[in-house]
Amino acid sequence: MVAKTRARDTKGREALIEALRQRFGDRLSTAPAILEAHGRDESFHAPHAPDAVAFVLTTEEVRTVVGLCREHRAPMIPFGAGTSLEGHVAALEGGISIDLSRMNAVLAVHGEDMDATVEAGVTRKQLNEHLRDTGLFFPIDPGADASIGGMTATRASGTNAVRYGTMRENVLGLTVVLADGRVIHTGGRARKSSAGYDLTRLFVGSEGTLGVITEVTLKLHGIPEAISSAVAAFPSLDAATNTVIQTIQAGVPVARIELLDAQQIDACNRYSKLDYRVAPTLFFEFHGTPAGVKEQAEMVRAFAAEWGGGDFRWATSSEDRNRLWEARHKAFYAALALRPGAKGWPTDVCVPISRLAECITLTRRDLDTLPFPTPIVGHVGDGNFHTVFVIDPANPAEVEAAGLVNERMVARALAMGGTSTGEHGVGYGKIQFLRAEHGDGLDVMRSIKRALDPDNLFNPGKLGSA
Amino acid sequence: MVAKTRARDTKGREALIEALRQRFGDRLSTAPAILEAHGRDESFHAPHAPDAVAFVLTTEEVRTVVGLCREHRAPMIPFGAGTSLEGHVAALEGGISIDLSRMNAVLAVHGEDMDATVEAGVTRKQLNEHLRDTGLFFPIDPGADASIGGMTATRASGTNAVRYGTMRENVLGLTVVLADGRVIHTGGRARKSSAGYDLTRLFVGSEGTLGVITEVTLKLHGIPEAISSAVAAFPSLDAATNTVIQTIQAGVPVARIELLDAQQIDACNRYSKLDYRVAPTLFFEFHGTPAGVKEQAEMVRAFAAEWGGGDFRWATSSEDRNRLWEARHKAFYAALALRPGAKGWPTDVCVPISRLAECITLTRRDLDTLPFPTPIVGHVGDGNFHTVFVIDPANPAEVEAAGLVNERMVARALAMGGTSTGEHGVGYGKIQFLRAEHGDGLDVMRSIKRALDPDNLFNPGKLGSA
Repeated sequence: MVAKTRARDTKGREALIEALRQRFGDRLSTAPAILEAHGRDESFHAPHAPDAVAFVLTTEEVRTVVGLCREHRAPMIPFGAGTSLEGHVAALEGGISIDLSRMNAVLAVHGEDMDATVEAGVTRKQLNEHLRDTGLFFPIDPGADASIGGMTATRASGTNAVRYGTMRENVLGLTVVLADGRVIHTGGRARKSSAGYDLTRLFVGSEGTLGVITEVTLKLHGIPEAISSAVAAFPSLDAATNTVIQTIQAGVPVARIELLDAQQIDACNRYSKLDYRVAPTLFFEFHGTPAGVKEQAEMVRAFAAEWGGGDFRWATSSEDRNRLWEARHKAFYAALALRPGAKGWPTDVCVPISRLAECITLTRRDLDTLPFPTPIVGHVGDGNFHTVFVIDPANPAEVEAAGLVNERMVARALAMGGTSTGEHGVGYGKIQFLRAEHGDGLDVMRSIKRALDPDNLFNPGKLGSA
Repeated sequence: MVAKTRARDTKGREALIEALRQRFGDRLSTAPAILEAHGRDESFHAPHAPDAVAFVLTTEEVRTVVGLCREHRAPMIPFGAGTSLEGHVAALEGGISIDLSRMNAVLAVHGEDMDATVEAGVTRKQLNEHLRDTGLFFPIDPGADASIGGMTATRASGTNAVRYGTMRENVLGLTVVLADGRVIHTGGRARKSSAGYDLTRLFVGSEGTLGVITEVTLKLHGIPEAISSAVAAFPSLDAATNTVIQTIQAGVPVARIELLDAQQIDACNRYSKLDYRVAPTLFFEFHGTPAGVKEQAEMVRAFAAEWGGGDFRWATSSEDRNRLWEARHKAFYAALALRPGAKGWPTDVCVPISRLAECITLTRRDLDTLPFPTPIVGHVGDGNFHTVFVIDPANPAEVEAAGLVNERMVARALAMGGTSTGEHGVGYGKIQFLRAEHGDGLDVMRSIKRALDPDNLFNPGKLGSA
């Protein structure tokens, strides 16, 4: 979807770019390919290129960019890995993209405290590579190799969230450059605190609209002594979903519990050369001591059996597990491959788990009316699921049909006490649903935005200013 | 400590009280005993009585009070159970205490989703009583039978936080009356969401300074199949604390891990007629399946043995366990009983766990210079510990000496990357430490306060306005 853009002060922008070029030299780019790449994410939404990209190296350099942009009243859009899904980085009013990818130092790992402080451009895979010999890992896994700064700004979660939480639970503290150029350090390394407003959580999920996150302190977790995975196919979506509900309600501390519907399994079989039965399927992962993992798996197998889940296939070797989870991680690309040349429009909602079976079944019914592929995958332990509209974006009828089903998905999730997006975020793709979800709370968000960014310079047209 | 108070507009207050009396009748009180009880909490800090107390029954009635107070520019202080510890409810500038204790309905329990929505005046014990036959419980346990609204407003935690988290992790959504009279609903019943700024977390820990919380939606947890407790005495504080560090680092999902130093054990023995060895002691509780609990307990026993922890005494019957935890819960009163007629000034800090042994040892050394009892207890799995200065408040030398050691505790915790208060909160007792802890972040808190409460009517002199 295309948002309105305001006229730009072309002359002022030129002066700003010149001033930035003097400070940053080669690290200030206006090359068309660079601009284009910084105005798009992995979503279907129309890209909007910034006027320039500044490749910053330090928090102090971010302050410099913020100061100059403030002086010239130009928008700023923080940019990490560009893997968001709702047009988060689109420069709707132009301005300067602040690319943090070169701020990629792991600043500290405190093994005893199980925390780490990283620059915002560190990616999750880079961090886990860095942690390899420590016995610790960072569990949040949205699929893409996103930057930690971006994951913080979008409140990312993913497959492991059912056990380890989302970025909301795993960020301990932040360094943030504010609109007025001040640098604040929120939170800290203590595991809990009652000392003041929770500024950390305010910036987690703020999508670059309240400040530029330059450093993040994260909780780490011990690599479990034992890990095992399993796959089970079910006679219906309902049966699979009810197995999930029973697992969660029994308090089984499952690490991952992923649903792939028949269409998605078929796509994964084709794309990753697998031979899973084409049926609604759950992928499980269990973490713990050897005895604990065995106990968890036995409980879940019994629940699955009650709901007709057969073919309980184990993957205990790390090779087998990797193959399984790689197929899951490639689900999006597998979906796209169902229709060569098409584009993917992913969307997600999240509901209380008691409504999940009904919500997925009704959504599947809606999706089945569409003339293009729409596989469902879900982090179902959280009540969260996704679909991808695999459409031809040049065909307005397809775009409109997808949009209508998307609206119905959101309305249904809200009516069930859920949310318009469990983990993809708002960007500009879902901005129109915020009033329905938050009511007058949206005005509170806007007043916070005005208090922290009175000139609306940080990522305008997104959260807090639209 | 006594904070400054502004002159009150006596005539305006009288008109306000008259207007409130017309709406609330008997439920508007100016009886001296009622006023006095609403200006004090369980702390040592000097009470400040409000001008009147309104006993509200509904969110709509809260709106009425807020509207009249706004009209008369009078302060409002939400009041739950009055069990806070840093002068949170002190009416520093007078005004109206909004007593929510009669808003005590459990509005909904969704067993399948493991959540509940309650009015703010419901206490944690009342909620758990209500849940008795559901197989679920609400784990946050600060000791006192606090109201859920108060626990939310102060970001309470307590003995179970090491496993179940604090109010930060366990509040899903809120109903809040804002300064302009609007009612917002934050969050929701989905377990995660990326849809907008995290208003829920902004109000959690805001200590009544941003709005009046009238309803809270909470996560519930399954009552574990098996529970067991154990007690072990150690040769030194250092040995006990190192056992804790090792337990946490090994990822043992212990439900409670509480430290009581020798002075506190002696106090508990006297007060609760027990016979524990007078030595630094850990109380443990394990939750899980029978096999899981056994496995956890064996791991912890091995760690304790490495550090010289002997006397590993089990309490598996619910009677034995209750006796043990009752002693722990009465630690504060046991401390007071060490010096009849004295008052208790409790304080707490929280540090990264790697610094805990050092922090406690240095603190104990400081405390040993004081001429009055100062037992230490701690939720040590979180890196959080407390002491109580058992002083004669009429003796300025004692008050000053306690204040100086308190300042040193806070400075030490901050220097170690910790926080000035892990769970007691700020109130007006710790307001002077916020600048040291948050730097320019304090100004961000103040700007949020101004955005949401421009006339500074909610709990003035506390967070955001001092």
